[in-house]
Amino acid sequence: MTLLDRQQNISRDRQLRERAAHVIPGGMWGHQRAEAVPAGFPQFFDSGQGAIVRDVDNHEYIDFMCAWGPMILGHRNEVVEQAARAQAEKGQCFNGPTEQVVELAELVVEMVDHAEWALFQKNGSDAMTGCVTIARAGTGRRKVLVARGAYHGAVPWCSPSLVGVTTEDRAHIRHFDWNDIDSLNAAVAEAGDDLAAVVVSALRHDLGIAMEMPSVEFAKAARAACDETGAALIVDDVRAGFRLDLGGSWNLVGVQPDLSAWSKAIANGHPLAMITGNDRFRTAARDVFVTGSFWYSGAPMAAAIATMRELRRIDGPALMRRAGERLRAGLDEQAARHGFALIQSGPPAMPLLQFEGDDEKSSLGEQFCIEALRRGVYMHHRHNMFLSCAHTDAVIDTALEATEGAFAALHAQRTNNE
Amino acid sequence: MTLLDRQQNISRDRQLRERAAHVIPGGMWGHQRAEAVPAGFPQFFDSGQGAIVRDVDNHEYIDFMCAWGPMILGHRNEVVEQAARAQAEKGQCFNGPTEQVVELAELVVEMVDHAEWALFQKNGSDAMTGCVTIARAGTGRRKVLVARGAYHGAVPWCSPSLVGVTTEDRAHIRHFDWNDIDSLNAAVAEAGDDLAAVVVSALRHDLGIAMEMPSVEFAKAARAACDETGAALIVDDVRAGFRLDLGGSWNLVGVQPDLSAWSKAIANGHPLAMITGNDRFRTAARDVFVTGSFWYSGAPMAAAIATMRELRRIDGPALMRRAGERLRAGLDEQAARHGFALIQSGPPAMPLLQFEGDDEKSSLGEQFCIEALRRGVYMHHRHNMFLSCAHTDAVIDTALEATEGAFAALHAQRTNNE
Repeated sequence: MTLLDRQQNISRDRQLRERAAHVIPGGMWGHQRAEAVPAGFPQFFDSGQGAIVRDVDNHEYIDFMCAWGPMILGHRNEVVEQAARAQAEKGQCFNGPTEQVVELAELVVEMVDHAEWALFQKNGSDAMTGCVTIARAGTGRRKVLVARGAYHGAVPWCSPSLVGVTTEDRAHIRHFDWNDIDSLNAAVAEAGDDLAAVVVSALRHDLGIAMEMPSVEFAKAARAACDETGAALIVDDVRAGFRLDLGGSWNLVGVQPDLSAWSKAIANGHPLAMITGNDRFRTAARDVFVTGSFWYSGAPMAAAIATMRELRRIDGPALMRRAGERLRAGLDEQAARHGFALIQSGPPAMPLLQFEGDDEKSSLGEQFCIEALRRGVYMHHRHNMFLSCAHTDAVIDTALEATEGAFAALHAQRTNNE
Repeated sequence: MTLLDRQQNISRDRQLRERAAHVIPGGMWGHQRAEAVPAGFPQFFDSGQGAIVRDVDNHEYIDFMCAWGPMILGHRNEVVEQAARAQAEKGQCFNGPTEQVVELAELVVEMVDHAEWALFQKNGSDAMTGCVTIARAGTGRRKVLVARGAYHGAVPWCSPSLVGVTTEDRAHIRHFDWNDIDSLNAAVAEAGDDLAAVVVSALRHDLGIAMEMPSVEFAKAARAACDETGAALIVDDVRAGFRLDLGGSWNLVGVQPDLSAWSKAIANGHPLAMITGNDRFRTAARDVFVTGSFWYSGAPMAAAIATMRELRRIDGPALMRRAGERLRAGLDEQAARHGFALIQSGPPAMPLLQFEGDDEKSSLGEQFCIEALRRGVYMHHRHNMFLSCAHTDAVIDTALEATEGAFAALHAQRTNNE
């Protein structure tokens, strides 16, 4: 059965796409629209269990995207779901928060090295915008430096798209090049006494570009620039948070931020974001007005408490690193055997897979993902992938059986084309 | 027992406040911090059932805030909770949406008069910012007119606080006076060919000011101004949505917007927001990039579908209006008997209660709310309140027994002071 045949048989997904085209502009929006994944990938999903995700046509896949990050303990983790359910059964939201907000903030302060307080939101963009607002409030300044090409959210000041965005939305945003100390220092100098914040991602994870950890020297230079100018060092830990280090991702380079933004994995798929900060910015965090209708709901906070405790209990980052290393080694070995050279970048728990000599559209990577999907493995060809604690050795080995077939198919195609 | 005695006995709430002070800046943030309600009100809540909310010290209150809006069918509505639970049991989020997104968008297009498509988010601020971004994308213009003093969210372009906000965040925001056609037309003229949108709340609901419905003339003038200039008419239905009219709040004045923002009550407390729009802005809505990690989750969408169907089945707006009218009539009668004159404004389902001759801080209103709370009724003295479909006649009558006592206490205090 060809992919096309199969696609035509994906009747439920196809029906839903046709219905969606009428009532949702473009059929779907944002990072989970079908155009963000290779052709033939499903648009609609039914359910998940551990490291397995199931689409609406009952096809199951080993899930290497984890809902684009959130599922860090795996789908339907019973410890997390039970905690969330127990709170949800008492009600969804009230005229004030539940006690979970205190318990969670205490746990965050205990676990995250730089955190002396926490605030909670719903979106990563809420947390990032909040960090910038707090930095401006705390410094009385305006300029915010971000790495060229870095993703920090989908609101006008930082969206990767300029459609509907005004020049003024970014009036005080300035750029530097990732891991380039001279570039950073030049931007700092240019901002002068108006520098409010230096924003860095936990690591460089720009779409379609090899991932890059911060160098220790760069991280120290960013910290020094903020110390010398009084600006806030903000780590955007939305994507990486708790996958690399439970104390904060920049622990890996020995540098503590003043403020951090978190979301995605902190509550294993329940909607929650957070800002953590140190005492230097406590007053500013008190003085800004940030809020949302559902920001005080207890169930996602109960989920976060359970997620964080479970990650600590099982040493989640070590598990995910080991799983990622097993996957990486297996893929390298298979690729070499089939005559391909891979560029595997990023931390093992958040791997990006690229083919040496691939074109700008990552066509070879796309074809590989399509072949892997046909064999029951859901991967991405341009966005970093995500491992979860449910990716056991057995799961990785099953995935590698599928990728072996994908490499073989890719090799056969290349041979046929020659 | 005095309120002070009682407050000292609120041991759990007090303990939590003390713990919160260490790990949450200012002890709590946003609209649900204790400073937003009268002294002696609880900060932390345990649970709710129907029209009743319970604080962490097991005090129960008839709830006239409904979590500041979301609880439109009452706490723990079994129809909604069952729908959400069924979906949550399949997993929290995946690599794409579940089929609920299609079902919900179809239902929205069916129920909301102006809606020809829908997009979903998490916060009211997401929906409002999205509407503005779509209006700018669709018109290629920048200026956005909003009513002076109106609340449209807690992000830099519209936050009621300027702390941490830059001038440029509001560079293209211009103001008009609510229900003042000349003021609106002057702002439209000033914006000239750069007018992207006119933003209106469903009704005027500024803090501490009598609520005011739009006049039909004003609503028509806003529509005409947008028709003549090609700008988008945006109704912010975040606070009022589905409480007044299931087809959109401006149905009450016979005017259809181009874009609407919704949140709060659409999923009976589950975290969800939405943008609805007409075909004129479909392409723009497709072209902007707006997204969030949890925007595709099925459980809150299942809750929204159940909430909307249930509101339609029982004619929720009529129920809430009747309950609000019963409350309003009862309060008026009691106030007059105890020598007070009330200003009761807003639609009955979203009432604001003020005392004639009260001071700027609404001190008399505050005292009334404190006395009502002591008698088991949770009201607000400056923010509009919210009725739900769980506010039956019996609930209102029980609440009125408590407010009778509150008025009597207020009367006695005034007599003592004289």
